[in-house]
Amino acid sequence: MFENQEKTNIESLGEFGLIDHLTGQFEPKQKSTEKGVGDDAAVIDFGGKKALVSTDMLLEGIHFDLAYTPLKHLGYKAIQVNLSDIYAMNGIATQVTVSIGISSKFPLEAIEELYKGIYLACEKYGVDLVGGDTSSSRQGLVISVTALGYADEKDIVYRNGAEDGDIICVSGDLGGAYVGLQLLEREKLVYLENPNIQPDLEGKDYIVERQLKPEARKDVIQLLKEAGIKPTSMIDISDGLASEILHICSQSNKGCKLYEDKIPIDPMTYDTARQFNLDPTICALSGGEDYELLFTIKQLDYEKIKNYPDISFIGYITEPSAGKNLITKSGAMHELKAQGWNAFNS
Amino acid sequence: MFENQEKTNIESLGEFGLIDHLTGQFEPKQKSTEKGVGDDAAVIDFGGKKALVSTDMLLEGIHFDLAYTPLKHLGYKAIQVNLSDIYAMNGIATQVTVSIGISSKFPLEAIEELYKGIYLACEKYGVDLVGGDTSSSRQGLVISVTALGYADEKDIVYRNGAEDGDIICVSGDLGGAYVGLQLLEREKLVYLENPNIQPDLEGKDYIVERQLKPEARKDVIQLLKEAGIKPTSMIDISDGLASEILHICSQSNKGCKLYEDKIPIDPMTYDTARQFNLDPTICALSGGEDYELLFTIKQLDYEKIKNYPDISFIGYITEPSAGKNLITKSGAMHELKAQGWNAFNS
Repeated sequence: MFENQEKTNIESLGEFGLIDHLTGQFEPKQKSTEKGVGDDAAVIDFGGKKALVSTDMLLEGIHFDLAYTPLKHLGYKAIQVNLSDIYAMNGIATQVTVSIGISSKFPLEAIEELYKGIYLACEKYGVDLVGGDTSSSRQGLVISVTALGYADEKDIVYRNGAEDGDIICVSGDLGGAYVGLQLLEREKLVYLENPNIQPDLEGKDYIVERQLKPEARKDVIQLLKEAGIKPTSMIDISDGLASEILHICSQSNKGCKLYEDKIPIDPMTYDTARQFNLDPTICALSGGEDYELLFTIKQLDYEKIKNYPDISFIGYITEPSAGKNLITKSGAMHELKAQGWNAFNS
Repeated sequence: MFENQEKTNIESLGEFGLIDHLTGQFEPKQKSTEKGVGDDAAVIDFGGKKALVSTDMLLEGIHFDLAYTPLKHLGYKAIQVNLSDIYAMNGIATQVTVSIGISSKFPLEAIEELYKGIYLACEKYGVDLVGGDTSSSRQGLVISVTALGYADEKDIVYRNGAEDGDIICVSGDLGGAYVGLQLLEREKLVYLENPNIQPDLEGKDYIVERQLKPEARKDVIQLLKEAGIKPTSMIDISDGLASEILHICSQSNKGCKLYEDKIPIDPMTYDTARQFNLDPTICALSGGEDYELLFTIKQLDYEKIKNYPDISFIGYITEPSAGKNLITKSGAMHELKAQGWNAFNS
């Protein structure tokens, strides 16, 4: 059908470029659409609380490898990834729908394992599974989840509200999911070469769990509420710290200064990255899949949360003309670039 | 992982059996969840209008064959299939999210074609595209759509409200999408045997369009509203008339009598089915993918719509003890069985 037409390679656009390209011309017409494409979740007004909607698809061979991903963990993660988007709007996640495409190689017990993980995540986070769809698939396992939630209008936090001087905060620690993935990939290769060798993941539970069983930061949303803080902007870290802060800066039309020595990295992440000859800071900046929350607060709010052990203060927002920069441990300044996981380069 | 465990073949459960099996034990906990799994869409209360949510996934090689499915049509159909579920709740569809997994064999222009169809459907039905996700896929094209809509609580029509004596109604005509598919499959085989032979679809536009470019029946919902009728139960016909009426009967705990001679079948569907040595009634009962609305009304409401040319009155609801039966043209009575398209047998 496209024989005689000009062809453009999708990889040249990248994921965000592609989404922009495909959806940029779409103008919402429904009065109830308060926010469409372009944030962690859409915002919809059905007359009461604002409804939040977010969706994500996980594909075998792209987003997960069944060689080292237990199906129960996969179900759990598929839910977490979506809940994380609702929390990133400062909302309460309430429902999910789950569509799966499964090849006939899976017995029922395998799908039950997948659903055990889905249920566990729903149970733990208090969300309801309200719909879905199962189909056979000729293409391996596909999981598509849509998460719903709500928030009062005054509580919703978008990506575009950061102001000069706001403090950039991040929850938890970063880079662990990426380094955990390197470990799992290495053990897979060892296993493929010699199936008699048992995987050597001893003592690495934390980073392996960061990869296989991430936790959406509902607790951080509650903590901020209790502290009386509404972030000025927020996003969840799915593609890496650098990519996410650049989203906030571009949507807020601001610059930023990030301090390398303030970026939270767990010692196990640090040491394991070093074993792989990886720079731990780059793992944190570009690794992705940590599902921590990145947000900005007014300086006045700093006193209220400065003693929370699970929140790190990693920089501040600047005028756009100052650029988007990382100050290294040695004091040098580098332009921040998104080298986050890109679905079309992998 | 499942080497030493008992294995159950998924095909033995069928699609509905699998969904029941996987989701049957799930108890909604959110107060806002008014209806979870088990109808065309979930119903959620965020304090104003009730929100309706429905989701469907289309997989290459299972739900569509790119050999004869233009991508623009595919995008259009992916939206229609989901809107149809919202209308089947007597709701107004307002937003969709679209996730796609695409292999690198597709150039950007191919994805643009897909989105042209998505936009056309959104435009025509007045719904907004509010979110989504694109990923590369190693496994062919995957499209997952979630549709959102709303309704006043008093207007929502479930599958479980049919009462004894209610008249069973169906919009449009049935079987065309299935017969159109047979035609496309035949021409594909001819083409594979001899690529120089052009497909012979002349004069078959209607049934080919029924398969490739279905239209969700928003107009029927409006028509019923104008006529002052609220159906007692409703479902859209994705799996075939027999399967859908059995859903209404089992969820309403009723029986039914369907009359073969009342089932609306277009002459082109009829003639083409005969050319394929297919029984046109079986195509209508079991073919599926017509995306017409099947609904029941109180006898008192019959006068209000008896003259609408696009609505057929095909039987009535009975006590459950009377069974679920089809009265053939010869006057014989047969038990209705769902032989609808089953994703796990195909």
